[in-house]
Amino acid sequence: MSPSHLSAAVLISEVGPRDGLQSVARTMPSADKRRWISALHAAGLREIEVGSFVPPDLLPQLADTAELVAHALTLPGLTVMALVPNLRGAEAALAAGVHKITVPVSASAAHSLANVRKTREQMLDEVRRIVALRDERAPQTTVEVGISTAFGCTLQGLVPEDEVIRLAEQLVQAGVDETGLSDTTGHANPAQVRRLFKRLFGAVGAKAGAAHMHNTRGLGLANCLAAHEAGVTTFDASLGGLGGCPYAPGASGNVVTEDLVFMFEAMGVATGVDLAALIAAREPLKAGLPGEPIYGMTPEAGLPKGFVQGAAHV
Amino acid sequence: MSPSHLSAAVLISEVGPRDGLQSVARTMPSADKRRWISALHAAGLREIEVGSFVPPDLLPQLADTAELVAHALTLPGLTVMALVPNLRGAEAALAAGVHKITVPVSASAAHSLANVRKTREQMLDEVRRIVALRDERAPQTTVEVGISTAFGCTLQGLVPEDEVIRLAEQLVQAGVDETGLSDTTGHANPAQVRRLFKRLFGAVGAKAGAAHMHNTRGLGLANCLAAHEAGVTTFDASLGGLGGCPYAPGASGNVVTEDLVFMFEAMGVATGVDLAALIAAREPLKAGLPGEPIYGMTPEAGLPKGFVQGAAHV
Repeated sequence: MSPSHLSAAVLISEVGPRDGLQSVARTMPSADKRRWISALHAAGLREIEVGSFVPPDLLPQLADTAELVAHALTLPGLTVMALVPNLRGAEAALAAGVHKITVPVSASAAHSLANVRKTREQMLDEVRRIVALRDERAPQTTVEVGISTAFGCTLQGLVPEDEVIRLAEQLVQAGVDETGLSDTTGHANPAQVRRLFKRLFGAVGAKAGAAHMHNTRGLGLANCLAAHEAGVTTFDASLGGLGGCPYAPGASGNVVTEDLVFMFEAMGVATGVDLAALIAAREPLKAGLPGEPIYGMTPEAGLPKGFVQGAAHV
Repeated sequence: MSPSHLSAAVLISEVGPRDGLQSVARTMPSADKRRWISALHAAGLREIEVGSFVPPDLLPQLADTAELVAHALTLPGLTVMALVPNLRGAEAALAAGVHKITVPVSASAAHSLANVRKTREQMLDEVRRIVALRDERAPQTTVEVGISTAFGCTLQGLVPEDEVIRLAEQLVQAGVDETGLSDTTGHANPAQVRRLFKRLFGAVGAKAGAAHMHNTRGLGLANCLAAHEAGVTTFDASLGGLGGCPYAPGASGNVVTEDLVFMFEAMGVATGVDLAALIAAREPLKAGLPGEPIYGMTPEAGLPKGFVQGAAHV
């Protein structure tokens, strides 16, 4: 039996349409994206990051985000989420009617400067402005911050844990509804994940958010397990580990949704996701990006003989 | 900080030369195998399964096992281990002077019959004969049993946990020094791993042995983490995940030694293995099996900036 304090249910937050597609050079046709998002929803996913509100010349692959938001808003029970890097993106996201916006803020000073040309303090100010805009225009919208490079950084190496927690506290003080930790560069190890999330819960309580793990060094699912043990209930993942070429340094290497769902379901932790339908959701992805490398062990190996979702696996 | 009751040091048992090579159709030249075993030892590995004592016509890839034992016995501080499936293999292994023999016994009745054409009770009798032979001829030799299909079976599906534990108890009563659990088919999930190893420790105490996990569905390292949390201190792994094509149903899919060592070292759990030297140990493997697929994320991604073995990673 898993320890009784561990959550019996988790939310899988599907980031493939944003984090995955952002890492793929070519653009997936919008019609295939809509089919894909519908298939993800049909499989039971209830939070999907459908895109990012950035200027189309910067990320042409995600230029259709507003249109995808409109499509996703028709799917019952789905939390429609989009990434916004700044106030301008937030304006567009709120105008499009998203349920939730997610703002990445770097814990690493070096990464913050390199990535968005702002210090962490300047990003905090930006977040305050985003929160104020939300309060004014769309008060029902959730504002989440994913703290990137929370476990280490390719530029500066170690990221002091005190600074990660301090940043989380400041973000909550700034009015953010939820703050999660992202292992942007695949540096995290399970002991560190457990430790940092426990500190995060201690610091911000119920506003502790998602674990966004990468499989850069093969520790993606072990890190998700550790986060789960620390009390995390939301896990970011990407169908087929899309966009993450694990062998390219600095590439995204997202945790594979199919393998993550299998792990939880096999453990008796409810995800609300039907694995067979989830695997079928690869079809529109493959149709829209023919030949794109897609990762994941469970779809290739098949489900174990005798595996029944929802049954206790003893 | 990891919970104080978790082991601060683990033993990585390298099974590539046996479990890996057994799954590769062609034969690696003996000279390259010797260089490879030496390189594994030089990297700090202190238990290596150098081969298997089976008739050469059955497994020509491992026909040089006695010669490899002789070579490995020259390496200081190394526990030289070999697999034996039956009494005849045990005779040869003891004559060769191994430190440790490992006998696979299936927990699944169906797998036992299909794999060795013996019932589990008949295999228990064989183990008793092996123990008696060891007592008589080489009393200093350790006899380990790896209970295969301990977490599930491709033939029969579920394997009742009570039967796994009962088998472990019977093996210890039969005189076996150590009994571990092997996820032969990649069915295991972390909750099950934790539960079964806790029961194993409860049943056989200090004679609880290694976790032999497969990465068939991507859960290899998460399952190792769960086993570690349950108190396991020995972990089987294969350099480069050799021989395990994760995409072929039923293929071995061994946990990758490099990624496992990285996980533990990053967590501050000592393995005694130098990661850089371990990655260098791929060279004789590649020389002996040119073009053979080799897996593992850590060697491809490189070590994280700022990663220092032996330092606390806070």
